[in-house]
Amino acid sequence: MTLSPEQTQAAKRQAKPFLRVLDGEIVSPPPVWMMRQAGRYLPEYREVRAGIGSFLEFCYTPDAAVEVTLQPLRRFGFDASILFADILVIPDALGQNVTFKEGEGPVLEPIRDLSGLDKLDVGGVVGNLAPIFETLRRLSVEIPKTTGLIGFAGSPWTVAVYMVEGRGRTECERARGWAYRAPAEFQKLMDILVDATSAYLIEQVKAGAEALQLFDSWAGVLSVEQFRSLVIEPTRRIVENVRKSAPDVPIIGFPRQGGIMIPEYVTETGVDGVSLDHSVPFDWAMREIPETCVLQGNLDNRLLVVGGDALDRGVDTILEQTRDRRFIFNLGHGIVPQTPPENVARVIERIRGSG
Amino acid sequence: MTLSPEQTQAAKRQAKPFLRVLDGEIVSPPPVWMMRQAGRYLPEYREVRAGIGSFLEFCYTPDAAVEVTLQPLRRFGFDASILFADILVIPDALGQNVTFKEGEGPVLEPIRDLSGLDKLDVGGVVGNLAPIFETLRRLSVEIPKTTGLIGFAGSPWTVAVYMVEGRGRTECERARGWAYRAPAEFQKLMDILVDATSAYLIEQVKAGAEALQLFDSWAGVLSVEQFRSLVIEPTRRIVENVRKSAPDVPIIGFPRQGGIMIPEYVTETGVDGVSLDHSVPFDWAMREIPETCVLQGNLDNRLLVVGGDALDRGVDTILEQTRDRRFIFNLGHGIVPQTPPENVARVIERIRGSG
Repeated sequence: MTLSPEQTQAAKRQAKPFLRVLDGEIVSPPPVWMMRQAGRYLPEYREVRAGIGSFLEFCYTPDAAVEVTLQPLRRFGFDASILFADILVIPDALGQNVTFKEGEGPVLEPIRDLSGLDKLDVGGVVGNLAPIFETLRRLSVEIPKTTGLIGFAGSPWTVAVYMVEGRGRTECERARGWAYRAPAEFQKLMDILVDATSAYLIEQVKAGAEALQLFDSWAGVLSVEQFRSLVIEPTRRIVENVRKSAPDVPIIGFPRQGGIMIPEYVTETGVDGVSLDHSVPFDWAMREIPETCVLQGNLDNRLLVVGGDALDRGVDTILEQTRDRRFIFNLGHGIVPQTPPENVARVIERIRGSG
Repeated sequence: MTLSPEQTQAAKRQAKPFLRVLDGEIVSPPPVWMMRQAGRYLPEYREVRAGIGSFLEFCYTPDAAVEVTLQPLRRFGFDASILFADILVIPDALGQNVTFKEGEGPVLEPIRDLSGLDKLDVGGVVGNLAPIFETLRRLSVEIPKTTGLIGFAGSPWTVAVYMVEGRGRTECERARGWAYRAPAEFQKLMDILVDATSAYLIEQVKAGAEALQLFDSWAGVLSVEQFRSLVIEPTRRIVENVRKSAPDVPIIGFPRQGGIMIPEYVTETGVDGVSLDHSVPFDWAMREIPETCVLQGNLDNRLLVVGGDALDRGVDTILEQTRDRRFIFNLGHGIVPQTPPENVARVIERIRGSG
């Protein structure tokens, strides 16, 4: 008997606990991956990184990007693997000047008016990001058969913050001010980002991404009104665009510090899963977020640095609270460089021993 | 007929819409004041400030502090007046080295271990802060009879962040890490701050403060577990301590970015009012926060910079949503220096025209 392409596809997904959860099952113990699992806390990452000039060049070198994506899988056997790249490849591909300064984070030549928007080249995005799709194509062959492959992008609001402020800034005051002062101008930027991000994600799926995550790191600074217009609405449009082309690829949203607004975000955007930062109590999330939505999160990344009993208790609390729910174990925010790798191993062991 | 002292006191409070709300009435239009209403956006403030050396010296000079506290009352006729001071007078009074650098904000000699805590002098706090009580005593005579007088302090967690990090830092990673790694040590710091802050606030009441506000600006960065132990529990203890000495003085809590945790904060700490940042939807707050608690907030301080129709709509939305509730109009966060004073006047006019 020969399997149809659909059956082959289904069997492939069925071998991956991460995708089984997103496709509809409760899996126990839950699958686990960690944001920034490929990163500076691993000596083998720092070694690859040292051999390449700029951080964006690193993202655009498939050999290097594939290698660092695989490193944490070899060490820890995570259930999912996220493409190694950066949310700022979008402004870079749009033609904005983006650099990463050591110890300072990203610096962009800020866009503050319509003339800056007019220079952006939306049509060039997919072509400019070819190396990233190459990385995904290779990863989809090289990762273990039980590991899910996640593509990702920054959400329009968060990417816009960097594009307008020129860097990450706690209050995001220029971007917020522009959006209030000239909503039609700011909407033009959001439209550009919705289109570019949709095209980028659709191409990631074609290159092998089995699920997608949208990072909205600066969602928490907004007023209720701006959260609706700048976080929820652009995300809803991206989900709609991607679904037209890739109806079966689950999308996880991460409206960091979205707090009270998260249930509305889930309902209005139609995301299949939501990643929760460490400020969200799971008993609340279980009650307020529709069961059709997978929950992901939310171990405090500082506990992963501290380790020991405090870490074990943190893991146990999450496992207890998320029983009977489609759930993916993750952090509330990315792994920080000071994290001892043995603490990551300790978490995975504890989760897998809990089933 | 002669009034008893209690009757005199009651008549005095009755003349102040701000206190009438806190004491139990719905007042329409609602009373209004704004966080950082005495500040750099006012030219007359900058003039007084220019005549004095350091920022702490400014806080400790009653002539100057009284003058800048009165300035916004003269211009705008706010319904409440908040003592001009800084939350970092507590570490300063405890003996920690605190300076304010131009354009950088506060810088402290950070405390990172028990030996640093052992040097702090809790007993000296009230004595060291004598000039602040003098400022309050003068204000209680000089402010208009319809204006409420608010004393304030930083909450232990937020003050601890500055004491441990040495400055404000988005992730508060050192303070959060210490609290996880050595809870008993960090608890010692929290105990010192609970005692110092309670004594400080009790003395403010003796000097004339008619209500108190506790600012927890860094509440939003915490995990659920740490929010309970570092925000809710220390605040609960301060409320309890102050009530023993001043049972009738209402206390407003401001757990900024506390989001989902705010209802639990209100119930567990017993605050009389809660100030909401601009990320909190009022329809949610009306439903989830017990009616016994006054709501305060939450106009976006960027709207106050932008002005115009967007500002008017922001004001109107809040007024509509808070009808039928004990409510005090305020911002979601302090006035920023770029704010045009005429926008403040515009808001007050609009509120007072709405009744």
